[in-house]
Amino acid sequence: MVDTASGFALHPQLAADCHEVGDLGLCRLLLLDDRRYTWSILVPRRPGIVELHDLNEADRVALIEETTAVGQALKQGFGGDKVNVGALGNLVSQLHVHVVLRRVGDAAWPGPVWGHGRAQPYASAERQAVIRKLQKALGC
Amino acid sequence: MVDTASGFALHPQLAADCHEVGDLGLCRLLLLDDRRYTWSILVPRRPGIVELHDLNEADRVALIEETTAVGQALKQGFGGDKVNVGALGNLVSQLHVHVVLRRVGDAAWPGPVWGHGRAQPYASAERQAVIRKLQKALGC
Repeated sequence: MVDTASGFALHPQLAADCHEVGDLGLCRLLLLDDRRYTWSILVPRRPGIVELHDLNEADRVALIEETTAVGQALKQGFGGDKVNVGALGNLVSQLHVHVVLRRVGDAAWPGPVWGHGRAQPYASAERQAVIRKLQKALGC
Repeated sequence: MVDTASGFALHPQLAADCHEVGDLGLCRLLLLDDRRYTWSILVPRRPGIVELHDLNEADRVALIEETTAVGQALKQGFGGDKVNVGALGNLVSQLHVHVVLRRVGDAAWPGPVWGHGRAQPYASAERQAVIRKLQKALGC
């Protein structure tokens, strides 16, 4: 659905793979439906953005601050070992930043999560609990 | 080698895998010795940093701006299709940001570069040409 004020619309592949957590100052925060990790995705609510240099400087500052806050919320709230951050966009060109909590011994450890095996969807109650915890930590 | 003023020392694994391009305002810029991609790595010259939230806000702003500048220099100077940015740190904990120029059809396309196949070292003259081009584009 297009936000008529900004022209932003979430890419349909991200909408299909994720659940919405809420909106931060710049980004829409999503939870990927894969319980093997705690895997969030930040999408700047700006139309037509592919690379970091397509954002203006103020938006880039907001993006790094929101990325940092989400990583810290994941690590503090879910007790993992390392935050992985990535903006790839080879398959879905709309700029989106993965912020993934990794645990020693998780399904892909120590390799990257992208392209590794099949997603394991959350049960509904489990997913809702993760989303509520993130909303509370991030005020969204 | 430890920088005695800041206490920063490049992780020996990064030193072994990469060649130095130069220093930007915050980061040391490296070129990974793998000619399958044009793969640079930014390392904030601060001691003891693992996660983004270990940096202060001013350093995070410098990091996103330097990451953006390097990505833009890669895309403009080397003619690829997509910049991939990642900070993983599962193997080398010192915070480092990969900025990798991807080309449709490259060795790992469209998957992630991390953990994919074996690095193909540059010939010396080719590597020097890439390094000089980056130094010129980034003024370092």
